[in-house]
Amino acid sequence: MRRARHSFRRPLRGGLSYRASGVDIDAGERAVRRLAPWARATFRPEVLGDIGAFAGFFRAPARYRQPVFVASTDGVGSKLRVAFLAGRHDTIGIDLVAMGVNDLLVHGAEPLVFLDYVGINRVVPRLVETVVRGIAAGCREAGCALIGGEIAELPDFYATGEYDLAGFALGVVERRRLIDGRGVRAGDVVIGLLSNGLHSNGYSLARKVVFERLRLKVRDAIPGLNRTVGRELLRPTRIYVKPILGLLRADVPVRAMAHITGGGLTGNLPRVLPSGCRAVIQRGTWPVPEVFRWLQRGGEIDEAEMFRVFNMGVGFVVVVPKARAADALARLWKAGAPAFRIGEIERGSRGVEYR
Amino acid sequence: MRRARHSFRRPLRGGLSYRASGVDIDAGERAVRRLAPWARATFRPEVLGDIGAFAGFFRAPARYRQPVFVASTDGVGSKLRVAFLAGRHDTIGIDLVAMGVNDLLVHGAEPLVFLDYVGINRVVPRLVETVVRGIAAGCREAGCALIGGEIAELPDFYATGEYDLAGFALGVVERRRLIDGRGVRAGDVVIGLLSNGLHSNGYSLARKVVFERLRLKVRDAIPGLNRTVGRELLRPTRIYVKPILGLLRADVPVRAMAHITGGGLTGNLPRVLPSGCRAVIQRGTWPVPEVFRWLQRGGEIDEAEMFRVFNMGVGFVVVVPKARAADALARLWKAGAPAFRIGEIERGSRGVEYR
Repeated sequence: MRRARHSFRRPLRGGLSYRASGVDIDAGERAVRRLAPWARATFRPEVLGDIGAFAGFFRAPARYRQPVFVASTDGVGSKLRVAFLAGRHDTIGIDLVAMGVNDLLVHGAEPLVFLDYVGINRVVPRLVETVVRGIAAGCREAGCALIGGEIAELPDFYATGEYDLAGFALGVVERRRLIDGRGVRAGDVVIGLLSNGLHSNGYSLARKVVFERLRLKVRDAIPGLNRTVGRELLRPTRIYVKPILGLLRADVPVRAMAHITGGGLTGNLPRVLPSGCRAVIQRGTWPVPEVFRWLQRGGEIDEAEMFRVFNMGVGFVVVVPKARAADALARLWKAGAPAFRIGEIERGSRGVEYR
Repeated sequence: MRRARHSFRRPLRGGLSYRASGVDIDAGERAVRRLAPWARATFRPEVLGDIGAFAGFFRAPARYRQPVFVASTDGVGSKLRVAFLAGRHDTIGIDLVAMGVNDLLVHGAEPLVFLDYVGINRVVPRLVETVVRGIAAGCREAGCALIGGEIAELPDFYATGEYDLAGFALGVVERRRLIDGRGVRAGDVVIGLLSNGLHSNGYSLARKVVFERLRLKVRDAIPGLNRTVGRELLRPTRIYVKPILGLLRADVPVRAMAHITGGGLTGNLPRVLPSGCRAVIQRGTWPVPEVFRWLQRGGEIDEAEMFRVFNMGVGFVVVVPKARAADALARLWKAGAPAFRIGEIERGSRGVEYR
């Protein structure tokens, strides 16, 4: 029997025995049963899904000679609060997967498996299924298998209708192909891959601007943007797996990559630069999504701050030698990932300079 | 530079820029800096700790020919509420690791790496350090490396002073040594390894009995038990890695194992039995810790219910052929794990029967 190892941590409700509250156990087990087909649909040949009862199993893809495993954990932060307000839970799972797998990708790793943790006020099987269906959709997009998860019903921890999510992503890379930015040289080109909006960072600031300053509701339209606040703020984080693995498999000599999360370009790009290298970003070389300008005006936020909090339209960065930049750009566009030459590497103290 | 990849997801506090609230960012980064040495102390040769900025890296131990990876995720549930009440956060991390690694162990896997997620109301560096120090202590005991984690400050999610934890454990087992219970036969012996008390399950019921029925406080003494409620309920979950890996490395033919968590022996033992096999447990063959009898009396809970909710003193189960039972018991005791012959396997419908 192939089964996905989602399990359920259940509390007591009503009376001093579980028996007195059979409904509750039912809800948890019904939820877990609902998840199995979604998780199973993400399986890949490396998953050994027909064994085991307490955990999920997999092996390294056979083609790796010296596999190095890369692991990351993340949540989606207060983007969840927008999901609660909007009552929309179908794409937040995509964000969870994106936050994990884009981090692995930075090091050249192919995502392999994913596990989720859902801490929730009360298990409503339909709600949990909707969230996990989103996680499974993200996993399919990223090519990784959802091999396990935990649903913890913790009524004393989370408010009614609320939950928190944590995701664990694991990938694999051939040792000699591992990317860590050491090869970056002055003269290299910085390519930015467009984001899908805010992705999963900067929501404390965004929520303050939108809900407190501008006093908008989640169902209000954003002036000039032709969509509601909820829809814009819940756009799922882009998963860059396919275009980036495409570049790597075509042997484009990628020297460094960065996933632009909390801290923006300013905070994340230096994390992969060697000392003595500086990224010089030319503003105006890519189309900044309207939502950022709208937030900036609404919150009267200065430009430097915007680049320190939001991705400003660049969700992922690739650094390549100048001679290969045109080829890389062409491949990214062909793979469906809009990308722009946004700057280059210069000698200088490690950091980001905007021009 | 060797670094542990703990990162920090930070919210905005005070004003519409991060700059206005420098203290906050400091707290997160200070916390992350405090964690690094604890995490580093858990590293093992398979951890490639000198590379990478966005994730943690490791490889399979060289001695494995056909490594199968085993992954599990879990939390510690409402045991955390006892930690909040008692203001003691130093051992709950051990519970988190135990919940994960004991699950891997069931399949014969050696724990390799661990990652943690801490969702917290506000990052108090000392508190976070205490929690992660516990996680690191658990990792050292389990022999696995803490290669990453996420601290998410989510003031709108968690109440003041509160947090939730999720852990991700990954282990490895030689493919032909993977244990999944298929080999269990009628006549096999069921060995129970003593638990350390409640471990990390049954806390909804235990809390109801102790704090509501008996109206005790966390600092009150338990009559006849010579310790306080807080100390008893926070005893860390036993980590069975050393004694169990000892058995496996000595080539004791272990046919099945079970980690006794929520659901007790009644719920967990059948998970690893093949159909047509039934575990018959002889009550009275092991010393049930006093805490369970005290809870049972206090809550007037019937015996069957106790065995469905609590581990009743058996935290981990090993099934071996009768001819090897004495050898297995001797090895477990020698490895410091008190263990008893608690029953045997009979033909019958899958389940647990108590005699």
